Amino acid sequence: MPTAMAAEREAPQVAVLAGGVGAARFLRGLVAVLPPERVTAIVNTGDDRVFYGVHVSPDVDIVTYTLAGRVDAQRGYGLEGDTTAVIETLEGLGHESWFRLGDRDFAICQHRTLRLAEGAGLAATAEEIRTALGVASRILPMSEDPCPTIVEVADGRRLHFEEYLARERSPDNVKAVDLSAAEHARPGPGVLEALAHADAILFAPSNPVVSIGPILAIPGVRDALQTARAPVVAVSPIVGGAPVKGPADRLLRGLGVEVSALGVAGLYRELADGFVLDAVDEALVPAVEALGLRVRALDTIMRTPEVAAEVARAALALAGLP
Amino acid sequence: MPTAMAAEREAPQVAVLAGGVGAARFLRGLVAVLPPERVTAIVNTGDDRVFYGVHVSPDVDIVTYTLAGRVDAQRGYGLEGDTTAVIETLEGLGHESWFRLGDRDFAICQHRTLRLAEGAGLAATAEEIRTALGVASRILPMSEDPCPTIVEVADGRRLHFEEYLARERSPDNVKAVDLSAAEHARPGPGVLEALAHADAILFAPSNPVVSIGPILAIPGVRDALQTARAPVVAVSPIVGGAPVKGPADRLLRGLGVEVSALGVAGLYRELADGFVLDAVDEALVPAVEALGLRVRALDTIMRTPEVAAEVARAALALAGLP
Repeated sequence: MPTAMAAEREAPQVAVLAGGVGAARFLRGLVAVLPPERVTAIVNTGDDRVFYGVHVSPDVDIVTYTLAGRVDAQRGYGLEGDTTAVIETLEGLGHESWFRLGDRDFAICQHRTLRLAEGAGLAATAEEIRTALGVASRILPMSEDPCPTIVEVADGRRLHFEEYLARERSPDNVKAVDLSAAEHARPGPGVLEALAHADAILFAPSNPVVSIGPILAIPGVRDALQTARAPVVAVSPIVGGAPVKGPADRLLRGLGVEVSALGVAGLYRELADGFVLDAVDEALVPAVEALGLRVRALDTIMRTPEVAAEVARAALALAGLP
Repeated sequence: MPTAMAAEREAPQVAVLAGGVGAARFLRGLVAVLPPERVTAIVNTGDDRVFYGVHVSPDVDIVTYTLAGRVDAQRGYGLEGDTTAVIETLEGLGHESWFRLGDRDFAICQHRTLRLAEGAGLAATAEEIRTALGVASRILPMSEDPCPTIVEVADGRRLHFEEYLARERSPDNVKAVDLSAAEHARPGPGVLEALAHADAILFAPSNPVVSIGPILAIPGVRDALQTARAPVVAVSPIVGGAPVKGPADRLLRGLGVEVSALGVAGLYRELADGFVLDAVDEALVPAVEALGLRVRALDTIMRTPEVAAEVARAALALAGLP
C-alpha cells in the first residue's frame, strides 16, 4: 500500500512529556489524529516504587493501559475489570494494602520485576509490555535510574509520592518537593533522541511539579528541549483554578506557585512556544501571551476521546502542524 | 476449663512425615481424632521451586490448605475457588505457564518470597501462613536449605521434580532420582525435636521415593527415627499395586522397587514398627509381618474425612496409642 506508507512517512513525529491520567487521556486523543506509531511518550518514573515485591511504574502503566484501551476508566488507572485476589490475600497475611494493585496489573508489574532482575532495563520492559498489549506508540520511561519524587510535608516527614498521594490522600501540608534523585539521573534510552527528532514536542496536561517536573529535572532534558528544532507546546492541567484530577493545587500552593493556567504557563515559559488552556480560562489568554507564548483556548476536559482529539489538534496546530 | 486442659495435656504428641495430597488427606483425618495442636507435620520441601519469581513450596502449601479446609478438593492442591488472572497475564507476556498457580496461592507464595528475602526462614514463614489460615497443627518444612529433588529420565535429562510431574506429566522413563541436595541439607528448625518428643511417629501415605525419601535423606533424620522413644508407623500409599494419586508407580519401577504395599514396607522396614495397608492388599499381610512389622489392613482410600480418621486411628493403634 504505497499511499498509506507515503502518508505515514510524511506524518510528523511527536514527542510528549507525560505523567499519569491526564497525559494518558491526552495521548488517547493524539493517537486519534496521528498515526500512533509516530507518537512517543516520555513518561515520568518519579512515582515508581516497589509494592508487595513488584516494581510498579504508575505513570508508565496508566499511559500503556489507556493507549491499549484497557484502562479502568472510572479510576483512571489499573485495568478494566481487574480483580484483587492477590492484594486481599496479602492483606490477610499482614501486608499494608493501601496501594490498590489489581491481579492482572500485579502480574504485569511482576513481569517488569523479573525482567529487571534479569538485567533488562525499564525501557526494554516498557517496550515488551506495550507490545504485548498492542500499543503502537513508543513509551519511554524518562530514566533507567531510580528517581523517587519525595514530598516533604509540614510535620517534617519525607514521603514517597505514592505515600503522599495514595496512602495519605494528598493532604494540604506540602512544604517542598524533592526531585534531587531525578536531578542526578541520566535520561533513559531514546529520550534525548526522541526530543531531537520530533516535529513537535508536547507537554501533556500533567502535574507540572511531580509529573513533568521530574522529567525536566533530569540533566540534559532542558537542553534537549531548548536545542530541539521542534516547537514546544504545553497543555494546562489546571482548569478554572483547580486541577482536573490529582493534587496539583496542593503541590503548587505548597511551592508558592499560583494555582492557575497562568501559574503553569509561568513555570514553562522558558521552554514552551505555545500553550493550550481551557475555554473557562479565556480571560487569562492575554497574560499568557504576555509571557511570550502562543495560546489556544478550548474545552480541555477530556471526558471523551473526541474532546481529547480536539485538544491534541489544538496543541499540534500551535506547534505549526496541520 | 480445667478438664479440657487436662485432656489436652494428656493427648499424645504425634509427628508425621508428609508429602503432598495423600499426606494432607491423612493429616485431615488425624486432626479429627487428636487435638490438632498435638500434631506436627514434617513436610518435604524437595519439590520447592521458584515459579514466576515466587517461592512455591508445593507440599507445605497442600498440607496447609488442606488443614485449613481451603484446598481445591478436586485437584488436591491450590485453593478452592482461586482465580488465575496472574498466571494468564504472565502467559500473555510470554512466560511459561505449565505450573498452574492460582492468584491467592500466588499471593501466599509471594509472601513467602518477601519474607525469605527479609531473612525469615521457610519454617518461620510456614508458621506465619498456617497461623493466618487458622491451622492449629504445626507445619515444619523438612529443611531451610534448598533440597531440589531431581528426576533423571531415559534421555539423560535431569528434571526438577515439578518439571517431571507438572510439565512433562510424569512419563514412565525414570532412570534415577537424585536426592543429593537433601543428603547435604540440615534438618529444619524443630524437626529433630519433634521426632524426639513424639509419642508416635507416622509416615503419611506419600510417595516413598520423592516425598518421604527426601526427608529421610537429610542427615540426622534416620538417626532421630531410630533413637526416638516413639514407635514408627507407616501408611502405604500403594493400594492394589498402584498409587492412589501421583506417579509413585513410575518412580518405584524406575528404581527397581516392586510397586506394591510390600515393596513400600520393604523400603521402610529398618525404620518402621508398624504398617497400615489397604484391605485389598490383605493377602500381603503375612509377607509384611515377615519383615518384622505389625500390620493393620483397612479401607485407606480417603474419599472422606471419616475414612481418613479411621486410617489415622489404625495408625495410632499400631503405635500403641488408644
